[in-house]
Amino acid sequence: MNEFELIRNYFASQPVTRGDTLVGIGDDAAVIQPPPGMDTVVTTDVLAANVHFFESIDPTALGHKSLAVNLSDLAAMGAVPAWFLLDLTLPEADADWLQAFAGGLFGLAQRYDVQLIGGDTARGPLSVAITAIGLVPEGKCMRRRGAQPGDVIYVTGALGDAALTLAALRGERTLATDDLAVIRDRMDRPTPRVAEGIALRRQASSAIDISDGLTADLGHILQASGVGARLNLGALPLSAAYRKYLPQIGWDYALAGGDDYELCVTVPPGRVNSVDKLADASGFSMAAVGEITAGRTLEIYDALGRLYEPQRKGFEHFAQM
Amino acid sequence: MNEFELIRNYFASQPVTRGDTLVGIGDDAAVIQPPPGMDTVVTTDVLAANVHFFESIDPTALGHKSLAVNLSDLAAMGAVPAWFLLDLTLPEADADWLQAFAGGLFGLAQRYDVQLIGGDTARGPLSVAITAIGLVPEGKCMRRRGAQPGDVIYVTGALGDAALTLAALRGERTLATDDLAVIRDRMDRPTPRVAEGIALRRQASSAIDISDGLTADLGHILQASGVGARLNLGALPLSAAYRKYLPQIGWDYALAGGDDYELCVTVPPGRVNSVDKLADASGFSMAAVGEITAGRTLEIYDALGRLYEPQRKGFEHFAQM
Repeated sequence: MNEFELIRNYFASQPVTRGDTLVGIGDDAAVIQPPPGMDTVVTTDVLAANVHFFESIDPTALGHKSLAVNLSDLAAMGAVPAWFLLDLTLPEADADWLQAFAGGLFGLAQRYDVQLIGGDTARGPLSVAITAIGLVPEGKCMRRRGAQPGDVIYVTGALGDAALTLAALRGERTLATDDLAVIRDRMDRPTPRVAEGIALRRQASSAIDISDGLTADLGHILQASGVGARLNLGALPLSAAYRKYLPQIGWDYALAGGDDYELCVTVPPGRVNSVDKLADASGFSMAAVGEITAGRTLEIYDALGRLYEPQRKGFEHFAQM
Repeated sequence: MNEFELIRNYFASQPVTRGDTLVGIGDDAAVIQPPPGMDTVVTTDVLAANVHFFESIDPTALGHKSLAVNLSDLAAMGAVPAWFLLDLTLPEADADWLQAFAGGLFGLAQRYDVQLIGGDTARGPLSVAITAIGLVPEGKCMRRRGAQPGDVIYVTGALGDAALTLAALRGERTLATDDLAVIRDRMDRPTPRVAEGIALRRQASSAIDISDGLTADLGHILQASGVGARLNLGALPLSAAYRKYLPQIGWDYALAGGDDYELCVTVPPGRVNSVDKLADASGFSMAAVGEITAGRTLEIYDALGRLYEPQRKGFEHFAQM
């Protein structure tokens, strides 16, 4: 048995089993049985060293994040996560590293009852490709399209901490050690907004997860829906740490930073009250940050009502819409 | 729009669309609708440069092979392929390379009506991770377990050409240029035995695809089924090119070479006639190469009835069963 077979054996002893998994790891393929009345939702994301994370990343964080970014995509569709597959490329099979990676991966998998049903390993530069599969009631998934003028734009959680962390780690910003420690976790261990996505499925007219920055990802909603939007800078949800540095760093990490993995959804005016109640009752952190307009532009206003122009590149992406 | 967004756009214009794909490429996730009465079969394989292929590989061949190895796993379960997702890591976005890769990939996808429904790209050393999804009537998939003493062992196609090609490319064997050209295609563009897998679903007691060599993969069947086997060397199906070199190269490429992507199935004695008829009627190339035994060993006999010991390492894998 070579070291890569050992790795496979390691992942074979994963903690979640589901009744709708007919064949798990250990055959040529897995067999699953999505229940009647449910559609099957599938997404894949690859995280590569030196592109999506530093090679020195804590392997527990990498395990967590690799699955989290995929669960975030399922959340944006309003799907309940159910299964995942893992393709792991590694320079060497180090037992401590693997144990930590699996700990982060399976910790999150257990929290959401997501079963690892297949995978493959190869020797090469560190990279993690995960395919996640979820379930949504027939015809009920959220889409990027569907936003209508007048809909209120909500985002979950807080924005910009991951991008600010990256800027600090690159030496572009100087933060107090304590502050960095707090927001760094938001970059390394993002929380997929699974419960929020499921709950918002009946309320939202459109949804996306914020992986490339709010303006870029809201831009996808606008493009898919054929509408525009007005954002209120002052309404953007910021962490206490971010807010502390706001005078120096400005809004652009929150507006156009990547790696937030929050949800951005649009809600028709008639459902705004029920979304606010839902957020209160469920303890969801949700902020109304703007509204959908009939124009095909994205306009951002500061607290004094002046048009604001972000400087960060994330916005370029949207500018070419 | 950066070069990797261009790549994504390139793959977005893929040729297959299916009625049971509710949401394809272009949202946070795809949505599919496996029909009632069908189980969903899922597999993933990663092919990495310098591990699974030479970096100089013809990109058309790589596109073909990346999907073929996954369809081969679905075939081993008896599943009809339906969808796939692609994670592509590339050192640079070269238009000619991408066009050729997509040509190979989509050529095979079209042949089997398999729709690309998602993917991701990153910059890094060349590697291709594909997740393929297929359908099989409820409870009817083939498994590695299920082989019974007395069952006849069949393999499709011919064995060993891919391993012999690799040996020739590495300079370990010398083949005539014409012969190498013929068998090289077997390494670069394996044919997934999709039709065979579907047809054998009702006949076979167990199945696996031969990716690590016949003895290693048959070993998985034996282990999963708790049985042994007797193989007849003289019955192994060889290509004309392989047979020409047989006196020099021996049986081990066919017995223990990797990358064949043929199917190995076991058939209860009562169904052997119908499998032979099926093969004749469908034009399947299928050879009976041995039988399942009650012992827990794999024994190989030459044409003179002498026990044969393979020298190749592929066999080690099984030896540790």
